[in-house]
Amino acid sequence: MAVYTHLTAAEIAEFLDAYDVGDLRSAKGIAEGVSNSNWLIETERAHASQRFILTVFEARTEADDLPYFLSLLDHLAAKGLPVPRTIHTRDGALMREARGKPCALIEFLPGVSVDEPEPAQARAVGIALADLHLAAEDFPQSRASSLSLPICVQMLRDNAAKFDEIDPQLDTIIPDCGAGVLEHWPVDLPAGTIHSDLFPDNVLSVGDRVTGLIDFYFACSGILAYDLAVTHAAWSFDLADNAFRPDVGHALIEGYESCRPLSDAERGALPLLAQGACLRFVATRVEDWFATPVDGLVRRKNPMQFAHRLAFYRAQGEAAFTL
Amino acid sequence: MAVYTHLTAAEIAEFLDAYDVGDLRSAKGIAEGVSNSNWLIETERAHASQRFILTVFEARTEADDLPYFLSLLDHLAAKGLPVPRTIHTRDGALMREARGKPCALIEFLPGVSVDEPEPAQARAVGIALADLHLAAEDFPQSRASSLSLPICVQMLRDNAAKFDEIDPQLDTIIPDCGAGVLEHWPVDLPAGTIHSDLFPDNVLSVGDRVTGLIDFYFACSGILAYDLAVTHAAWSFDLADNAFRPDVGHALIEGYESCRPLSDAERGALPLLAQGACLRFVATRVEDWFATPVDGLVRRKNPMQFAHRLAFYRAQGEAAFTL
Repeated sequence: MAVYTHLTAAEIAEFLDAYDVGDLRSAKGIAEGVSNSNWLIETERAHASQRFILTVFEARTEADDLPYFLSLLDHLAAKGLPVPRTIHTRDGALMREARGKPCALIEFLPGVSVDEPEPAQARAVGIALADLHLAAEDFPQSRASSLSLPICVQMLRDNAAKFDEIDPQLDTIIPDCGAGVLEHWPVDLPAGTIHSDLFPDNVLSVGDRVTGLIDFYFACSGILAYDLAVTHAAWSFDLADNAFRPDVGHALIEGYESCRPLSDAERGALPLLAQGACLRFVATRVEDWFATPVDGLVRRKNPMQFAHRLAFYRAQGEAAFTL
Repeated sequence: MAVYTHLTAAEIAEFLDAYDVGDLRSAKGIAEGVSNSNWLIETERAHASQRFILTVFEARTEADDLPYFLSLLDHLAAKGLPVPRTIHTRDGALMREARGKPCALIEFLPGVSVDEPEPAQARAVGIALADLHLAAEDFPQSRASSLSLPICVQMLRDNAAKFDEIDPQLDTIIPDCGAGVLEHWPVDLPAGTIHSDLFPDNVLSVGDRVTGLIDFYFACSGILAYDLAVTHAAWSFDLADNAFRPDVGHALIEGYESCRPLSDAERGALPLLAQGACLRFVATRVEDWFATPVDGLVRRKNPMQFAHRLAFYRAQGEAAFTL
């Protein structure tokens, strides 16, 4: 939620020169995304204006992976999904540099992110996620997750000695740093290309209609039902008191299954997959907790939010997913 | 350059309900302004979209002064100046609250801020500033500056003992904390409504055409030529090495005088007025320097930038303004 790289208007205009998008009319640094710098750009050509998002990829996004992310946007947009197209340069390139950093120009999509999702919105997101899984079936590229469960378990082990500094309950909830979840992790579920970070922040809507799935910079190859479990864990809890919202969770799964029904094996794995999803967010937030100075530019997210959700999924088992 | 108050999409939609602007389609927190939180809002009505800036006024802007600022925007926009109109509620109000803070909805204007002004742009800004002074002649409200020269001198005196912590040169440049400038400050120059903070940040342009004068939250009653001196001090120095750009400074004054010629008294006062302008920015930056933690969310601006400009104006006298 910050602009890390300040490009001047002249630098942005020079950047746009490589694209067939008209002349720069407006550029506003926007507070969107936690890892990259984003501008909302407006251009004009023949009295028609167009809007784009210009993203400067900061160190945290691996530059080698950018062609994967940007090609995936193109693949999904071409199939009619509400995903921002990557704008190509006149030479057909997916990205170019500004200030020595890789940058991409992508389509601007309307819509707002909901903060407190209602069932109708969750259902629409379930449909959109299933659409995404189906549309990506023939996407030819692959990418290993940089936050796979073994990696997350290791991240937690590296910080386990300091869990008490965050919250005395953290060690009680994951005394094994997730080893138990890892041990039973399914290996034979349907896999494909997944978003893997579909938080409410990353979904734009107008009313109950999904107008944008954004921020694909954690997309990777993975278990499809894991993506649904991530989305379930991200959407189905009250922000204020972290209480489970069964109506929202059920609507999400019902929407998903209306496009892509789950197999019995997938359905049976959801409780464990959801615990794995929670472990990942606990692990990354624990790392960020110790890496971020208290007065820093980035607000720390509390790892306990997802630790408590993990405990919920472990306690509830299949009941959390029963329609 | 931050969003201090995070409004949810639901809160923004509820806020917009009081205005006749259509339905919310997009809301992006933008990194604009140092004291307030700003959103770029898009609405839609009858398939036509419109854009606005929603500003949440944080503690630093005095709520009692907001009607003055917002009425001034209306006054100037009605006269055709490139100034954002204040959007009124259906009940005719200039502002309303969200999250217990005063907020205003103003027109979005296209254009980008130049970082390194060229003479043609400075000339256009000079014209726009003179237009503003002339258009505001019949603006019926008044407001005393909260950063008048006596106040700034006092701010500097309050911090003088710590000048060395900023830079050993600071005390050498203003050993009297500006008392000498204050002593000779002119009292009988033409006065009116002034912007008083027309930095390049606060001017939007498309090419050499000024498309927006923004951020009127320091506007007040004051000496018109002081406003020109503020603008001269803010525009006519290289960002990289703080060197004077005579071509830019001359173009600014030439543009201003093409609409509103200066009297001999105004012209003769410019060197002192420019020193007063610099003193103000030294004073506010010195205060912010000691008030802002090094790791804080707001980047500190170095007071020495304007201390050196002050020394330049004192040394050059009228030569800095000779066309």
